[in-house]
Amino acid sequence: MNERRYTLTISCPDRTGIIAAVSSFVAQHGGWIVEASYHTDDLTRHFFMRQEIRADSLPFELDEFRARFALLAEEFDMSWQVSDSAQKKRVVILVSKQDHCLNDLLHRWRSGELGIDIPCVISNHDDLRGFVEWHGIPFHRVEMDDKAAAFTEVSRLFEHNRGDALVLARFMQILPPQLCQRYAGRVINIHHSFLPSFAGAKPYHQAYQRGVKLIGATCHYVTEELDAGPIIEQDTVRIDHGDSVEDMVRYGRDIEKTVLARGLRYHVEDRVLVCGNKTVVFR
Amino acid sequence: MNERRYTLTISCPDRTGIIAAVSSFVAQHGGWIVEASYHTDDLTRHFFMRQEIRADSLPFELDEFRARFALLAEEFDMSWQVSDSAQKKRVVILVSKQDHCLNDLLHRWRSGELGIDIPCVISNHDDLRGFVEWHGIPFHRVEMDDKAAAFTEVSRLFEHNRGDALVLARFMQILPPQLCQRYAGRVINIHHSFLPSFAGAKPYHQAYQRGVKLIGATCHYVTEELDAGPIIEQDTVRIDHGDSVEDMVRYGRDIEKTVLARGLRYHVEDRVLVCGNKTVVFR
Amino acid sequence: MNERRYTLTISCPDRTGIIAAVSSFVAQHGGWIVEASYHTDDLTRHFFMRQEIRADSLPFELDEFRARFALLAEEFDMSWQVSDSAQKKRVVILVSKQDHCLNDLLHRWRSGELGIDIPCVISNHDDLRGFVEWHGIPFHRVEMDDKAAAFTEVSRLFEHNRGDALVLARFMQILPPQLCQRYAGRVINIHHSFLPSFAGAKPYHQAYQRGVKLIGATCHYVTEELDAGPIIEQDTVRIDHGDSVEDMVRYGRDIEKTVLARGLRYHVEDRVLVCGNKTVVFR
Amino acid sequence: MNERRYTLTISCPDRTGIIAAVSSFVAQHGGWIVEASYHTDDLTRHFFMRQEIRADSLPFELDEFRARFALLAEEFDMSWQVSDSAQKKRVVILVSKQDHCLNDLLHRWRSGELGIDIPCVISNHDDLRGFVEWHGIPFHRVEMDDKAAAFTEVSRLFEHNRGDALVLARFMQILPPQLCQRYAGRVINIHHSFLPSFAGAKPYHQAYQRGVKLIGATCHYVTEELDAGPIIEQDTVRIDHGDSVEDMVRYGRDIEKTVLARGLRYHVEDRVLVCGNKTVVFR
Repeated sequence: MNERRYTLTISCPDRTGIIAAVSSFVAQHGGWIVEASYHTDDLTRHFFMRQEIRADSLPFELDEFRARFALLAEEFDMSWQVSDSAQKKRVVILVSKQDHCLNDLLHRWRSGELGIDIPCVISNHDDLRGFVEWHGIPFHRVEMDDKAAAFTEVSRLFEHNRGDALVLARFMQILPPQLCQRYAGRVINIHHSFLPSFAGAKPYHQAYQRGVKLIGATCHYVTEELDAGPIIEQDTVRIDHGDSVEDMVRYGRDIEKTVLARGLRYHVEDRVLVCGNKTVVFR
Repeated sequence: MNERRYTLTISCPDRTGIIAAVSSFVAQHGGWIVEASYHTDDLTRHFFMRQEIRADSLPFELDEFRARFALLAEEFDMSWQVSDSAQKKRVVILVSKQDHCLNDLLHRWRSGELGIDIPCVISNHDDLRGFVEWHGIPFHRVEMDDKAAAFTEVSRLFEHNRGDALVLARFMQILPPQLCQRYAGRVINIHHSFLPSFAGAKPYHQAYQRGVKLIGATCHYVTEELDAGPIIEQDTVRIDHGDSVEDMVRYGRDIEKTVLARGLRYHVEDRVLVCGNKTVVFR
Repeated sequence: MNERRYTLTISCPDRTGIIAAVSSFVAQHGGWIVEASYHTDDLTRHFFMRQEIRADSLPFELDEFRARFALLAEEFDMSWQVSDSAQKKRVVILVSKQDHCLNDLLHRWRSGELGIDIPCVISNHDDLRGFVEWHGIPFHRVEMDDKAAAFTEVSRLFEHNRGDALVLARFMQILPPQLCQRYAGRVINIHHSFLPSFAGAKPYHQAYQRGVKLIGATCHYVTEELDAGPIIEQDTVRIDHGDSVEDMVRYGRDIEKTVLARGLRYHVEDRVLVCGNKTVVFR
Repeated sequence: MNERRYTLTISCPDRTGIIAAVSSFVAQHGGWIVEASYHTDDLTRHFFMRQEIRADSLPFELDEFRARFALLAEEFDMSWQVSDSAQKKRVVILVSKQDHCLNDLLHRWRSGELGIDIPCVISNHDDLRGFVEWHGIPFHRVEMDDKAAAFTEVSRLFEHNRGDALVLARFMQILPPQLCQRYAGRVINIHHSFLPSFAGAKPYHQAYQRGVKLIGATCHYVTEELDAGPIIEQDTVRIDHGDSVEDMVRYGRDIEKTVLARGLRYHVEDRVLVCGNKTVVFR
């Protein structure tokens, strides 16, 4: 994915002719579709699509694309957006003291694997300042004594940095409802269980008590209801009776970081479309 | 595992010297240990062990083994049992109309992969009679109009056939509490979800509603509380937004039968020791 | 997938406008696209696509579809075909003595999970006759003393039964080159290793010797070069040092049958397009 | 695993009474066995065992343990060793320019997950100096113009730093035979394919050419024959026709680092015993 691309995502009521209309629109301007995915949700009869188009194949820029496409979009009653791969998404990361997800994301960022900008990292502890700043990324400590003030500051930093996504990389604090609403579909959390099993606190302890034979991790959009938002990605790993809670925590870290990295990648590549409390993920 | 073996399973309060005492007992009679596994549960400080010994390496039969070992067992306050691989476990299977687990178990039985006897299959429908009887296995239909009478008959058939294990191979009926108690640790169910997620009815519909990205199956001992008994084995399989409930049911069948077959194998090879509401599985 | 569908598969040199042209063709006749997948092979610059269209949404039958579409196909230099879900694929199965794959396929067939017809089963042994005939499926024994004559008979049976696909369900015999050529892209084999590791005879013994930590199975189209044809599906399962060759064979059976069933499903649903010695699988 | 432990590993010709003799030796000194594993190799009739004993349960130190145990060891013709968890293994890491494995190992080290010392990192490039030195770990650049001199220096650094293990974390250079021999069973490599498939150079390109549906990674001991040493750990991940070589490289990084981290953990915890060209891994 080195050449510049426009990514068009659409959702609208299902009917015949949508693919034809959109594809013809692209074709009549000489657009070269590199990747195309479609889905119809059976419950809501809603149609979802995503197309990646080579930017250099189109005779105009994004603004004109938007202006021209708007007419078509209206006809089909589409919710839609188009993004430009040259415009990197800006991802603000919230952490606490555990750094395995942060370490993983920063490596993917600095190796160029994950094509994002990280304008800053925010934490309620100072432990990870040195590591973050070594990367040349600003680090902001926000004390949690006064939670309302703290989250006002988080929100200010997110907006000041023009954040596209806010990632809770094992942040361990619950976001207030108004932030969940304001940034709906833009706040991504990694929960250390296979949801809906073991929502809430200490999921590995819950898993140990129940005696499950696999543990998991879940990457999801944050909503007002704790650990109940639309799921983007999940995975599990096998454990057995010999594994203590500490062993589970250790195995868990490996799937937490992998699942978060995959979920975030899907999000910043505009592969995730929300459909009620579920997601369509065009991998 | 073709040569005849004795399998010794033990649980007792943990202390030093247990392995030495048991191993020395075996060694002083020339016993050849083929497989040995140990575990200490951190919460209960209970010790669990399993040893397979070549039958032909010992100078006496099982009765004398039991008599001699009883002295040692008493000293360490052991719960214990020893079984003989020449004595196949007798497994009674309960089914309804869905036959994927039954088909799978019968194939493993007739190919000799699963070293069990199946004295009979019991069902509340007649649909699978022909297939079962083709195998030369008696098929009993038990109508569910009067549930109390039905389960009295199930219990009678299980005992008349000297069943060692009762397998609910997608039986879709809830066992009455008194049977759960009477046959505790001997009744095995396959539930079509990754427990504790989606206990109870229609788990694939629940999974579809929640939008999970993996579905699973759980093999567990049946207890009075529905789908809450000790878990023997679990597995998951990846799905995505494109999969309907029917697709999940189809994927699910494949893990249901695999998970049940593995769980049952562990059980009949005396690899499963119950520890509270959890299991130790010496694979 | 209960409603009747037409499945259109296409491959052609890549250029802009293909999706638009095909989608517009479908749309202008009111066709309702239920599933659509696209792929461009980077090496050959060949484009591949598959669309499922609701049959009842089109105002004509398959013949007229074919006649009309041929004009478009010519313009884009397409290799293409369209199939009707009401016309079940006819799958002839070759077996030897091992029956785990056969048992699995017959169950998927009789439960309606796999929407195929099985006009006959052919074997070089009589062992599985009873099981096959219980299903009401003709069983033909073909002795392998004279291989040339034997495969002439296999070929005759396949053609007499108007077979669409020939499945080697652990057949253990090598197909002669002329049959590989004549039925190219229609003969499916399950090999009991993760190819290209351990091609040829006794793969589990080879795996045991090498000390690998996972074993696998591969479903592929048969070509003249042994175990070297285009791969349709593969999977692996974890083993460890404690597993004997016999254990591997046992674990292996479970992935063999799953991998074959998945590969065959993809094939009969026209999800597999061959691209050189590789496959595009639109799952 | 916080309390101090002695880990005893043994291999010897199989006979009856070994477990009893060793367990009794431990028990008669009050030793508390925390973990115990056994295996008999069917081909060589060699017996392998590993026991972890709480250090504070024994009335003597490691030297006296060794002196006393030597008598027993001689009787059974044992190869054996005992290590002390308080004595961290010293792991020297070799890297080139790719840093995903290095980043992963350094995180596991600095978070305390992997209980090792890293006396230095050696590389033929200077790219990773800053990152390594940020951790307070010495970084040595060894130019590869004169390979003989370079590996003499690698060897000198390894011995000067009293290295217990030498890890090739995507080092991309072939170790000379004399080093393979001198450090046999102590040099660990991560190869970016599921061996024995795709040994040698550019395995992801090889995998892409062959059209496999899973790719893998292999952690193994280095021997004179390239990519042919005893395998410690492997894993695979699913790909499909849509994945380019670059995508495979990206997926591959995630399994490479996981497989290497697991393999190295097994090694430093004395869980890996070499048996011919295979390994026994007591997880």
